Amino acid sequence: MRMVDIIQDKRNGKELSDEQIDFFIQGYTNGEIPDYQASALLMAIYFKGMSPKETALFTQSMVDSGEKLDLSQIKGVKIDKHSTGGVGDKISLIVTPMVSSLGVPIAKMSGRGLGHTGGTLDKLESISGFNIELSKEQFIELVNDYGLALIGQTGNLAPADKKLYALRDVTGTVNSLPLIASSIMSKKIAMGADGIVLDVKTGSGAFMKNLEDATDLAKEMVSIGNSLNKNTVAVITDMNQPLGHEVGNANEVKEVIQVLKGEKIDDLLTISLAIATQMCLANGVFTDENEAKNALIKSIEDGSALNKFKQFISNQGGDPSVVDDPNRLPQPRHRYDLKLDKKGFIHGIEAEAVGQAALYLGAGRAKKDDNIDHSAGITLHKKIGDAVREGEAVATLFSLNEITSSAIEKLTEAYTIKSSAPEKIEYVKTIIK
Amino acid sequence: MRMVDIIQDKRNGKELSDEQIDFFIQGYTNGEIPDYQASALLMAIYFKGMSPKETALFTQSMVDSGEKLDLSQIKGVKIDKHSTGGVGDKISLIVTPMVSSLGVPIAKMSGRGLGHTGGTLDKLESISGFNIELSKEQFIELVNDYGLALIGQTGNLAPADKKLYALRDVTGTVNSLPLIASSIMSKKIAMGADGIVLDVKTGSGAFMKNLEDATDLAKEMVSIGNSLNKNTVAVITDMNQPLGHEVGNANEVKEVIQVLKGEKIDDLLTISLAIATQMCLANGVFTDENEAKNALIKSIEDGSALNKFKQFISNQGGDPSVVDDPNRLPQPRHRYDLKLDKKGFIHGIEAEAVGQAALYLGAGRAKKDDNIDHSAGITLHKKIGDAVREGEAVATLFSLNEITSSAIEKLTEAYTIKSSAPEKIEYVKTIIK
Repeated sequence: MRMVDIIQDKRNGKELSDEQIDFFIQGYTNGEIPDYQASALLMAIYFKGMSPKETALFTQSMVDSGEKLDLSQIKGVKIDKHSTGGVGDKISLIVTPMVSSLGVPIAKMSGRGLGHTGGTLDKLESISGFNIELSKEQFIELVNDYGLALIGQTGNLAPADKKLYALRDVTGTVNSLPLIASSIMSKKIAMGADGIVLDVKTGSGAFMKNLEDATDLAKEMVSIGNSLNKNTVAVITDMNQPLGHEVGNANEVKEVIQVLKGEKIDDLLTISLAIATQMCLANGVFTDENEAKNALIKSIEDGSALNKFKQFISNQGGDPSVVDDPNRLPQPRHRYDLKLDKKGFIHGIEAEAVGQAALYLGAGRAKKDDNIDHSAGITLHKKIGDAVREGEAVATLFSLNEITSSAIEKLTEAYTIKSSAPEKIEYVKTIIK
Repeated sequence: MRMVDIIQDKRNGKELSDEQIDFFIQGYTNGEIPDYQASALLMAIYFKGMSPKETALFTQSMVDSGEKLDLSQIKGVKIDKHSTGGVGDKISLIVTPMVSSLGVPIAKMSGRGLGHTGGTLDKLESISGFNIELSKEQFIELVNDYGLALIGQTGNLAPADKKLYALRDVTGTVNSLPLIASSIMSKKIAMGADGIVLDVKTGSGAFMKNLEDATDLAKEMVSIGNSLNKNTVAVITDMNQPLGHEVGNANEVKEVIQVLKGEKIDDLLTISLAIATQMCLANGVFTDENEAKNALIKSIEDGSALNKFKQFISNQGGDPSVVDDPNRLPQPRHRYDLKLDKKGFIHGIEAEAVGQAALYLGAGRAKKDDNIDHSAGITLHKKIGDAVREGEAVATLFSLNEITSSAIEKLTEAYTIKSSAPEKIEYVKTIIK
């Protein structure tokens, strides 16, 4: 088999065989196929696409290129959840204790954030003592005993994807639906769960700006997952503004606790319920959507979700008292109330600008080895649709360091204010099974 | 400027600017732009093409990537000629003395052959003493004094093309019309002539199998040449069988002499006259096609073309007596008459199989450093349309070494014999200006 023939077949619109895809993915991973042939194939895929069968094979081959997390010793149907990414996205921390409290086993592997704000791991590490470096045995034991555990990404999961993604980034081949979908799914599938619920974001702050593109991506990912025997569902949700009112690390944990306490009824709860419902259905603990949803609401009302979260923190060495006293979370030294020189209704809060401002405050990493200021972040007092009076603060910026003008300016840029109220946003757009 | 933006622009179908093309070509040549970005761009060009303007800029930038032959000290309008390549193609050796005898200055730079048979240089080197390593001063002086000289390819002409061609070969991006055309034209333009006549082959033995593709390529090359102020014309000619009756090195020189002596009236003369006519028109020595053609025929009849060839050989240290006595050319030690087990009419002689057989006999180089047996070759006694009687030899194979069965079998494969006569072949298809 020659790589140049594989490139030519794809260039000519032919469906690649299982053997051809494996030859490419394994050969590229081990360095036998050079970057210049890989990039030519990626560009041919950009133009000619891949069939659902090819895309599934491509994904499986990327999974096979590295280690896989073996969750077979965990009893029950393990459900994983993945978000395509957004600013203020703390949904994982809300839904996992909720569904776990209903008996759905959650064995979650998470990454650190590189970008505006921290990842799920960074958020959890704002809780004093929280340890994400469990041995595989500890991890499995915790899930079997308590139904929920979370570890940092270890091992060499889907190295083909890592190498291909870096190449796509510099060769104009990022924006290919089958490549995007297989990239996301390869890592998720390597993480070993039986079912996957995808939170596909759409809107100005998402990779997929419009609903149509988000729907296409969701369909592609659901098709891959189901082809590879993972029960896969996608929920398409709004990302026209940051999620919830808190952006950062410690303050996002604080907001998670508020939601689990039933203190918040907004986009965050609406989306969390939709995702958690699908996780319950994928597990099979409920077969009826309304029953699942009602049970989830009850898990908040009766405190079982909050208790599960507390136990989860405690199990992994963290200080569970933060749940009762969020002031035990890292506190900022400086704060700044942002006031705009306009009054009216908020029509837009550009998530990317908010994320950038949070990064300037110290909430995220610009480079892999940067330290995170867990106390840094932004509280959004107003969201889209809210009225802003003259001189009213729309947001507060927090940091251990002095608040810089670059952060303030960046956050100011995020806002669009108009004199009349905007249309109401639908937080959950649609569900793709 | 970033290479990834250039790739994306082309991928999105945008016309690249002069600056973008130069950034890519010069950056790729000097190693600043890696192969993997170049191959992604090449694949995007494969799918999105290049406008005539882009293709001309691309060509000029490849010319500018290396040295250029400066022919400005040669008086008159220098005309070059290029063939897209075929088996038995000795047209250059026929037309250059013809047009030179009419006053068209020819300062030709030729390459060695890598493939089935030798290149023009190898053919000339079958003449004892012939020297293609002239200094630039000697070369220019010979053209000014005698109107015709030929040197081997020296210097670093269009290194961008060399590097890109090697990359295209392994990335499935060879078959792109603007890339093929600019590749050929960059080298020709670097050779410094004022006008270029292209012999574009079409047929089973050519890169372009059908007339439509050959016409497209011819138009693309003519457009590039004219855009870059080179008077450029293309003649599309037949390559459904080897050209003439001789394939090899010494025996091709022998056939050149036969044509220049007026002893042969066949495809070779027909095509040579068409090419030579266009060379005269491009130079301006004639403005009327028929007048040019008649003068060229006269140059054979009155011996002036043959004398020019003799003088050319003598000027470059070769033994001119081969013209009067072709037996002074290298002689083979072995020969084999090929007889087929079929009678009827010849419908096809696959040029590639004939070339391959000649290579087996020693007439060409499989690798760059291989030695050539100048006496090795094939005489085709019969061509398409000729009748073959039972037991009649259709060809004779020659070599210094014993004739191998692989050469005989390969040559046998070349023939298609049918019981009725085929349609007549038109040797010169069309002319593109």
